[in-house]
Amino acid sequence: MADLFARHRATLDKALDACARRYSWTAYPESPSSKIHGQEKPRVGQARFEALLGSEYPLQQPAEVGRTGAEVSPYTGEPLGISYPRVDVAALYPEIARGVSAWAGAPAATRLGVCLEILERCAGQLFENAHATMHTSGQSYIMAFAGSGANALDRGLEALAYASKAMADVPANALWERQFGKGGAARLHKQYRLLPRGVGVVICCATFPLWNGYPALCANLATGNPVVFKPHPSAILPVALVTSVCREVLAEAGFDPNLVTMVADTRDQPATMELLEHPDTAIVDFTGSPQFGRWIERHCSDKLVYTETAGCNSVVIESTDDLPAMASAIAHSLCQASAQMCTSVQNIHIPAGGILAAGKPVSFDEVAAAIVAAVEKHLANPQVLCGTLVDDTILARIARYRDLADEHGRLLRDSAALDYPDFPNARTASPLILQVTEQSRAIYRDEVFGPVSFVIAGETIDSCLRDATDNARERGAITSHVYSVDEAFLDRAIDAYHEAGASVACNLTGMPINFAAAYSDYHVTGLNPAGNACLTDLAFVSSRFRIVQSKRMG
Amino acid sequence: MADLFARHRATLDKALDACARRYSWTAYPESPSSKIHGQEKPRVGQARFEALLGSEYPLQQPAEVGRTGAEVSPYTGEPLGISYPRVDVAALYPEIARGVSAWAGAPAATRLGVCLEILERCAGQLFENAHATMHTSGQSYIMAFAGSGANALDRGLEALAYASKAMADVPANALWERQFGKGGAARLHKQYRLLPRGVGVVICCATFPLWNGYPALCANLATGNPVVFKPHPSAILPVALVTSVCREVLAEAGFDPNLVTMVADTRDQPATMELLEHPDTAIVDFTGSPQFGRWIERHCSDKLVYTETAGCNSVVIESTDDLPAMASAIAHSLCQASAQMCTSVQNIHIPAGGILAAGKPVSFDEVAAAIVAAVEKHLANPQVLCGTLVDDTILARIARYRDLADEHGRLLRDSAALDYPDFPNARTASPLILQVTEQSRAIYRDEVFGPVSFVIAGETIDSCLRDATDNARERGAITSHVYSVDEAFLDRAIDAYHEAGASVACNLTGMPINFAAAYSDYHVTGLNPAGNACLTDLAFVSSRFRIVQSKRMG
Repeated sequence: MADLFARHRATLDKALDACARRYSWTAYPESPSSKIHGQEKPRVGQARFEALLGSEYPLQQPAEVGRTGAEVSPYTGEPLGISYPRVDVAALYPEIARGVSAWAGAPAATRLGVCLEILERCAGQLFENAHATMHTSGQSYIMAFAGSGANALDRGLEALAYASKAMADVPANALWERQFGKGGAARLHKQYRLLPRGVGVVICCATFPLWNGYPALCANLATGNPVVFKPHPSAILPVALVTSVCREVLAEAGFDPNLVTMVADTRDQPATMELLEHPDTAIVDFTGSPQFGRWIERHCSDKLVYTETAGCNSVVIESTDDLPAMASAIAHSLCQASAQMCTSVQNIHIPAGGILAAGKPVSFDEVAAAIVAAVEKHLANPQVLCGTLVDDTILARIARYRDLADEHGRLLRDSAALDYPDFPNARTASPLILQVTEQSRAIYRDEVFGPVSFVIAGETIDSCLRDATDNARERGAITSHVYSVDEAFLDRAIDAYHEAGASVACNLTGMPINFAAAYSDYHVTGLNPAGNACLTDLAFVSSRFRIVQSKRMG
Repeated sequence: MADLFARHRATLDKALDACARRYSWTAYPESPSSKIHGQEKPRVGQARFEALLGSEYPLQQPAEVGRTGAEVSPYTGEPLGISYPRVDVAALYPEIARGVSAWAGAPAATRLGVCLEILERCAGQLFENAHATMHTSGQSYIMAFAGSGANALDRGLEALAYASKAMADVPANALWERQFGKGGAARLHKQYRLLPRGVGVVICCATFPLWNGYPALCANLATGNPVVFKPHPSAILPVALVTSVCREVLAEAGFDPNLVTMVADTRDQPATMELLEHPDTAIVDFTGSPQFGRWIERHCSDKLVYTETAGCNSVVIESTDDLPAMASAIAHSLCQASAQMCTSVQNIHIPAGGILAAGKPVSFDEVAAAIVAAVEKHLANPQVLCGTLVDDTILARIARYRDLADEHGRLLRDSAALDYPDFPNARTASPLILQVTEQSRAIYRDEVFGPVSFVIAGETIDSCLRDATDNARERGAITSHVYSVDEAFLDRAIDAYHEAGASVACNLTGMPINFAAAYSDYHVTGLNPAGNACLTDLAFVSSRFRIVQSKRMG
């Protein structure tokens, strides 16, 4: 195992180059197609997943004091019946501590090699993990393989590249010589050592369990910190599979497998607070609700805290040269993963007086109708695009907003269950679309998680832009879109979004506009309420370790 | 002014190289000798300082609502009589905000160029600033010129080098192309922009007003953030002089001078909390007491906080090949700046059974006596080495520890006023040295600020090391020293200090052991209670800005 770094070095170097130049690259194929992978791998993956159903998940961790877990498939409505160790957190931490000094004392290249091997083995496990993600977070099989699979692995490799860069910035040693006054010639041999901060707790979300899971794992582990995964109670299995890989690779490489552990829980008996309050927890990575994210940011001031939460992602439509293409791109975002992505569009701002499309005036209603029509078109094959709803609260939320439609405007499109022949009991909902004016800001300024969106009539394009950017600044935004054929307006819109602490995409069509590219897109700015951390920049990694030095005279 | 970056580029490049290889280098001569500077500059500097006495300091800032300032020279006991603007903080912040967008929108090279010019002009102002530092913080003239002058400027340049490196890690733009499915070829032009976080409040300490002042100024300003200096009430003038330089250079370069302002106050009417509580304050750099530093770390969770406070710096003596040289080095630390440096030694751990010196047994008492004798020798010319005491509380503290001596052990050396012919009213004290055992841990585990130290008899060398490193871990340490001729012991001691989150120096003699070298010594580890930030690593700069991006299809 000593040559893990050498074996994977080319991958790391390529990732470093991609991060520096930010072109399109992926280390992990995102398509589960058997044309790429052959027939066997997909079959084996599915069989492995199915074998786990109704079993005791084999995670040999210390401090197990029982079993826990209550996952239910959003596709079948049936419990997965998988149990995980219920962990005595206080008893777990001393076990974690045992292996830290050997791990932190190993050369950075050794740690990076182990992490690269972990990512590669996780890539080899994507089929079973895709089924696990599908039947916990509710994603479609293809999305589970790509978005929460290969794309997330890329983000892990990206974090590893940054960790490698930050650590390489500190030399191992130096010779320092100078004269003090007349007599005092000093000659010092200095050695610099990197030390970890402490236990890194990685709190994963329900819908994309590994999106921040791989990056936080890699950023922490590469810099010497042990990791405790805290999966969402409804999506434990995808995280458990990764935990198993980590422990296996660590052990094979001669390190303590307890450097990566998992503390699973249920909604009724949550374990998160105990992890957050443990004095040895030094780092918290959180993906989840803005409310809990903000609470952690405020109350864990003695820890490093990295959050990605949510905001109200907007589209501002000033004009377009291709109305159907634009409408299709926006509609795709409203459908994809049932708008349960952090990059899903929610608020679509259109001037009440309409826009120019391919140079011709098009009314507000026509633009709205084009988007609705595009939604219908995307719903031709909903199972792949929409997946299912992660929990029942989303259905209740849809009902609530349906009831608000008349009071605030009108229902442009009602939501309904989708028909998945393979899964008659799937929990599904097509997009609910409300037409409102800016007078109804209060109902669309926060994230409405799930397939609920708003087509918002602004008085002018300037008020559209102002409302969208004010909401980004004050309530958060992860993605923002502008459509315009007017370069001057695009420049102005870009400035306005940037001034609000938000990134912005212009005129995206013909591709899934929710897509965030590892090695190229800085994901989350940290300048608005949708999170304080970015995947991935130097700031994401450079505080996860510290430097101690020794100097010897002579 | 457009060529400021070009003019100073070689300096920045040299600093980057020095940081990478960490050899000895300085951009600013630390000796005030007229052999280097000629006769004129020192004279002019002193004259400028004297002209400011009893005057209204000319700082044309907005939101002035009166005058403040109550500095008293520790050398003469006389008030300086200088008044500074008393600032309405709420009214100041909107004025600061005006210039931010032009500053943040300028190329990084422009901001770096302005910062480099500021440092150069501050270097040209070191003589007057040395007098200002002397008559506020109480340092000796030579120390004021070097430690709080040239050496601190080097740390500022170092911070600038790191800021430059962190910003250069983000490319300005990228071309990103990939295929989505069969039809969708996407081609995106991406632009990445760096944005500042917000107002950076820089809280300077009384004894080394600019030690963190220059680094925090440079780290913030280079990354686009405006700076508000909050000098210690007893050491305003050194900071005011720097503030004037910043405003002058900014204005000459066509930027708003209010990007750097100063909020002075008095002990009776402090302004710090208002700055800390202002919602636009995004960054806090603090040097000062561990108590207030810890309070800021805990209570400013919505801001980036960088602290350097204090701990109980230790020496562990296992053996030596040169007792007089070792004793002299330690004694120098006890005397230098009257032990008011963050690197001053406080706790000297010696095994009760004595040590081997040059291979011969030497008793505990003999080692202690050698240190005391070396102190006496250093006190031959106390004015240059010791300077004065920054405030009266130190005299009270010395008296308190003198009274504790008999109860806890014995007085090895009493403190007394020093005789400075030029300044008969100088507030001074020679080192007070107590001999105690580890039973008295409670009295030496915290920083005892000023010339009070402890020679601590440990049962064995192992208990000496354990006590010293436990104290570093639990109460903090900025420097630590070990003396031993046994390489195996040195290795063990280095591991033990590192394990406690502390750096360590071995066998330093013939040089001022308090010296921390910019570009080479990582100052403060952030792993023990003596502060959470390091001068300077990537972590010190990489979170001070954020990245927003725009992408355009086409």
